[in-house]
Amino acid sequence: MLGVQNPFFWIVPAASILALVFAWIFFKQLMKHSEGTVRMAEIARHVRKGAMAYLKQQYKIVIIVFVVLTIIFALMAYVLKVQNPWVPFAFLTGGFFSGLAGFFGMKTATYASARTANACRSSLNKGLQVAFRSGAVMGLVVVGLALLDISVWYIILNAFVKDGDPAHKMMIITTTMLTFGMGASTQALFARVGGGIYTKAADVGADLVGKVEAGIPEDDPRNPATIADNVGDNVGDVAGMGADLYESYAGSILATAALGAAAFMHNFDMQVKAVFAPMIIAALGTLLSIIGIYAVRTKESATQKNLLGALGRGVNLSSLLILVLSYVVLRLLQLDNYTGLWISIVVGLLTGWLIGKETEYFTSAAYKPTQDIAGNAETGPATVIINGIGTGMMSTAFPVLTIVVGTILAYLAASGWNFANMSMGLYGIGIAAVGMLSTLGITLATDAYGPIADNAGGNAEMSGLGKEVRERTDALDSLGNTTAATGKGFAIGSAALTALALLASYIEELKIGLIRLGEMSMSIGSRVVQTSAATLTDFMEYYDVTLMNPKVLVGMFTGAMMAFLFCGLTMKAVGRAAASMVDEVRRQFREIKGILTGEAQPDYERCVAISTKGAQHEMMLPSLLAIIAPVAVGIIFGVPGVMGLLTGGLSAGFVLAVFMANAGGSWDNAKKYIETGAHGGKGSEAHKAAVVGDTVGDPFKDTSGPSLNILIKLMTMVAIVMAGMTAAWSLM
Amino acid sequence: MLGVQNPFFWIVPAASILALVFAWIFFKQLMKHSEGTVRMAEIARHVRKGAMAYLKQQYKIVIIVFVVLTIIFALMAYVLKVQNPWVPFAFLTGGFFSGLAGFFGMKTATYASARTANACRSSLNKGLQVAFRSGAVMGLVVVGLALLDISVWYIILNAFVKDGDPAHKMMIITTTMLTFGMGASTQALFARVGGGIYTKAADVGADLVGKVEAGIPEDDPRNPATIADNVGDNVGDVAGMGADLYESYAGSILATAALGAAAFMHNFDMQVKAVFAPMIIAALGTLLSIIGIYAVRTKESATQKNLLGALGRGVNLSSLLILVLSYVVLRLLQLDNYTGLWISIVVGLLTGWLIGKETEYFTSAAYKPTQDIAGNAETGPATVIINGIGTGMMSTAFPVLTIVVGTILAYLAASGWNFANMSMGLYGIGIAAVGMLSTLGITLATDAYGPIADNAGGNAEMSGLGKEVRERTDALDSLGNTTAATGKGFAIGSAALTALALLASYIEELKIGLIRLGEMSMSIGSRVVQTSAATLTDFMEYYDVTLMNPKVLVGMFTGAMMAFLFCGLTMKAVGRAAASMVDEVRRQFREIKGILTGEAQPDYERCVAISTKGAQHEMMLPSLLAIIAPVAVGIIFGVPGVMGLLTGGLSAGFVLAVFMANAGGSWDNAKKYIETGAHGGKGSEAHKAAVVGDTVGDPFKDTSGPSLNILIKLMTMVAIVMAGMTAAWSLM
Repeated sequence: MLGVQNPFFWIVPAASILALVFAWIFFKQLMKHSEGTVRMAEIARHVRKGAMAYLKQQYKIVIIVFVVLTIIFALMAYVLKVQNPWVPFAFLTGGFFSGLAGFFGMKTATYASARTANACRSSLNKGLQVAFRSGAVMGLVVVGLALLDISVWYIILNAFVKDGDPAHKMMIITTTMLTFGMGASTQALFARVGGGIYTKAADVGADLVGKVEAGIPEDDPRNPATIADNVGDNVGDVAGMGADLYESYAGSILATAALGAAAFMHNFDMQVKAVFAPMIIAALGTLLSIIGIYAVRTKESATQKNLLGALGRGVNLSSLLILVLSYVVLRLLQLDNYTGLWISIVVGLLTGWLIGKETEYFTSAAYKPTQDIAGNAETGPATVIINGIGTGMMSTAFPVLTIVVGTILAYLAASGWNFANMSMGLYGIGIAAVGMLSTLGITLATDAYGPIADNAGGNAEMSGLGKEVRERTDALDSLGNTTAATGKGFAIGSAALTALALLASYIEELKIGLIRLGEMSMSIGSRVVQTSAATLTDFMEYYDVTLMNPKVLVGMFTGAMMAFLFCGLTMKAVGRAAASMVDEVRRQFREIKGILTGEAQPDYERCVAISTKGAQHEMMLPSLLAIIAPVAVGIIFGVPGVMGLLTGGLSAGFVLAVFMANAGGSWDNAKKYIETGAHGGKGSEAHKAAVVGDTVGDPFKDTSGPSLNILIKLMTMVAIVMAGMTAAWSLM
Repeated sequence: MLGVQNPFFWIVPAASILALVFAWIFFKQLMKHSEGTVRMAEIARHVRKGAMAYLKQQYKIVIIVFVVLTIIFALMAYVLKVQNPWVPFAFLTGGFFSGLAGFFGMKTATYASARTANACRSSLNKGLQVAFRSGAVMGLVVVGLALLDISVWYIILNAFVKDGDPAHKMMIITTTMLTFGMGASTQALFARVGGGIYTKAADVGADLVGKVEAGIPEDDPRNPATIADNVGDNVGDVAGMGADLYESYAGSILATAALGAAAFMHNFDMQVKAVFAPMIIAALGTLLSIIGIYAVRTKESATQKNLLGALGRGVNLSSLLILVLSYVVLRLLQLDNYTGLWISIVVGLLTGWLIGKETEYFTSAAYKPTQDIAGNAETGPATVIINGIGTGMMSTAFPVLTIVVGTILAYLAASGWNFANMSMGLYGIGIAAVGMLSTLGITLATDAYGPIADNAGGNAEMSGLGKEVRERTDALDSLGNTTAATGKGFAIGSAALTALALLASYIEELKIGLIRLGEMSMSIGSRVVQTSAATLTDFMEYYDVTLMNPKVLVGMFTGAMMAFLFCGLTMKAVGRAAASMVDEVRRQFREIKGILTGEAQPDYERCVAISTKGAQHEMMLPSLLAIIAPVAVGIIFGVPGVMGLLTGGLSAGFVLAVFMANAGGSWDNAKKYIETGAHGGKGSEAHKAAVVGDTVGDPFKDTSGPSLNILIKLMTMVAIVMAGMTAAWSLM
């Protein structure tokens, strides 16, 4: 059995392969559908070409970054010997698989848009089936590749890492695997930031000149930026989101495994179970996601409401089953305090669900906050912005309190309701994050099909299909917005919990780093402790990570500032890239005669090229800052500074991310609400004011906000990979 | 000598009385000037009446809050015995003097506006003299009353507090005095929030209907909201700012005294010097401010540039002299490590100056960031907002790094360049804050004369004075904007340093609280320590205030969220109050025939009443939240939760405050830049877009941003006053 210590482990590679097989089946089924008319296929080809061209360009740059970082890690591992020899390889595979997940997801999405539009020509239900199954390809590829990477690495490291003490060996394995999370995070950050800038530069540029100045509708083929806009949905919302959630998913499993290894370091038998538990729960969730995906079906004459019900049934079925089955598995495993840990999982799932509901309340036009913002449009754009920002800021209270309660409950349940039992409590926070993300296969599917439907709408518009088809794709799109709210709740909630788990495992990495430097003793107050026997609390005292240490305090200031600086850089980047797009579209309207009358075709490629160049150019600085900041703070202020940076960045960044996502979502839906006829409807002054809000909200919700989730985790990942270095440096 | 332990102390009451005397002289000089024409005097009376009516209304509500809180503190002091018997009284005087400072400052300002306008009819220089000397009244009243309160309370407590050990007695005195800071903070929060909502509701309401819809200029007498707008400048920018800086000033001196008492608790002789040092430096700075105020004079034919030079000379003179004299005084005092402490003062002054320069760079139209935002106006309001937010967020990097470097240097210099010498290091941070604020008498004068000049402009416009007069008041106003940037740097920098010092003194309050509960021993790890002998580090370990304690982490999340929630509430409040104003102004234009032709007079009072009611109604919730949050977190999560709340609130709140202030300032000046003729000038589409940015920026920079500074400190003050309670609660 390759020496794997518990047969339950094999569920993990099995689930991984099953997920990939079903993804392949869904993809094949998709390809059997027709792309519709020649015009539809042609437009889809344009978008596909642009998207692939962008992705290639992005991967070229990311490869350079990966080569440089791999060389640095190799130096650390082989020359300075402050890191594990496996780390450079783990880092590379993490990045590779994350990129692969984005690539497959986006490829599927670009094949799906015309096919969804074509299916919508028959019925709403057919359209849903095509779009949703394509989204499911993305969901299953993400979880399948993550579980594959995790199980293969576990088998390899288990076979090759040599250490006399099996419990100690397990700690080395889990902390090494954690570092492949950095590869995934790095890839994800570039994908989110680059894709986010691309999509919003195109979107804002297209809207400002097309909708506002020329007065032509969204996705009108006369708008030169319209293809770039549709490409953007794919590279930003599909590829970016895929890489993002791949990273959360893998990160939460790996951090929890490392925390489990640390919590049970004195009991090898339990340790194995604690390390495998998060992987097995994730594997189970994957199997249940496949079942849930099959449950999403409805009758041919389905209304929008029926479809929403069908989607809800699929997700709820998977979630309820995981609640039951995770208890069964934990009990069969006979892991210590399995009831408590199961409560942590339940708490995790509930927390994600609740944040989703809160997000929906604050961003959906069905509720008062967004309706109020729409009402403010009557007094012009300034009041729309003031109230949107106000609402977004206020809306942070609920998700934060939910995370606060969830964190404490997950901690207490796992620790046997004893605050002092810190190592078990932190393991509980990790397992709550895993619980929240366990059914990612299906939640991601409900999230990813939104941009597919959006693109299908674009295709329908540009191909001149009937109004009915466009209405159906719009219905799918708005359905997607509702399910996406829940998806965002899970993404943002899991980012917070995962970051907390990663933070805790940072200390474990430090410990391993110190042990690698040669087993040694630490003087803590009046006691002397061997490194390997030191507890988390010992480390806290050794490094004086208390709140009055000025290094901690300035680290916290820097962390909070990093979140704002990062947002500012990405906001400005969108502004600049959008301005070039505006100039280009204006130029084409001016110089290419006959665009607006439909007699001449605009130069789509030029706009695609501008977005691509803008995104590539602008993504470097914020991304590099995220990597450099923890290293620089570590060199200057040591472990206390890094811990301050990470906690300050996490707390401020989380709140800022919720604010930006909710304000953006609310503006978007306030505009859509007015378009349904409220406050004068389309074309009114109120509508124009609401469009300003929507435009401002675009980079809020699709560039800066989601990138923050990754920033928080990437900074922690960098600190983790650099822990050995920081430990050595602190001893000099 | 009333038993005061060091004769240097008497400089403090002397400086206080001198400051009040000069304030009185300047006020008398002001009153000798003529208010100009009958129309000018009438308008000034309108504004004065409105402002006083508002202040009375506000004080009525604040008195209720104070009565309730005083009863609670009396219960804590006399029934539960978890607080000092002096606390209720200290709390009351802090609030009373803070309110008095705001009242005097505002009274002077409302007498000064017509007089400044009238002086501007002769020359720019005369206008500056009147406006600046009136601002000086405010500056000197604030520092005079603060020093008076401090010295009188010191004399009283020194005479009445009974304790055998003099060093211990000193700790009781300083920690008791600290609690009067809570009175000042509470008063300041209501003044800032209420005044901020008032002024921006009127301003936004007046602009939206007047400038944008009716197309009449700013301050036009045909606009019904114009008097309310001018009243707002007084209650928000003058009274609000006065209470705010009173609180920073007193808070920094008192926190530093408490930290000094703690740092030298084993050496009574040094302790006295350490407690007196911040008071004496503040007293010296006051004397030098008076000299600086007299140095602000220039020839009659002065240009705008000459005037700026004159203002700069006054401020620079005071700052340079304090650098020299504080060294002399510290040396004469023979305080331990006086050179190091002097370096901390220098660092404090430099930090404030540098943040001022950075603020100027990011908000002045003379530099690229603001010019870029003006350029974005050509593509409409959305890009103005996106880029303003982006610039504001990016601009946080520099002030944060400045504070980081300043904090560390002040800490290290005071601690003898030894990180482990925590009590001296924290004292150094406090003394740096005192250094930064020592010349508040003059810096506040340069800040406060801005709104006076603004009101003078309003008066000139409404009285139909010539274009030349308005140009001169505008020149004074824009001069004020430049000097105000420096002033804001000091305000925001000192808020951060003061909050850090307050945070440190929270632990001292806890210690005193524990001692009051009966001398006891604390088990820390394997050691047992007597409370009175416990160090800061002991307390950190005792309460487990380390970064992995989940209570600390959820406290940090809550703190960061509080900053956003508070901003969101105040933003929404302005939005709501402005909307009622818009409705009223529209109604008057519609129902009162002949307003726009000048044949009928609008109903100014009605608008004043709407702003007053809106502000009173809206200020309660955010203010009460700030008081309740630390208490609630303390009850649920104890000391670690409170420390997390305060540090999370401080780091996120500081960055958020800088972002909001700078984004708002930049939008304001981008609009003014366009009004000078750039990008099409006044009336162009670009100008309209810039006006949207300016309107959004109004609550950013004048309501939410500045209120955050107080929120941060008030939460800490509440924690300090509640420390005895929290200590007792933790033992149950």
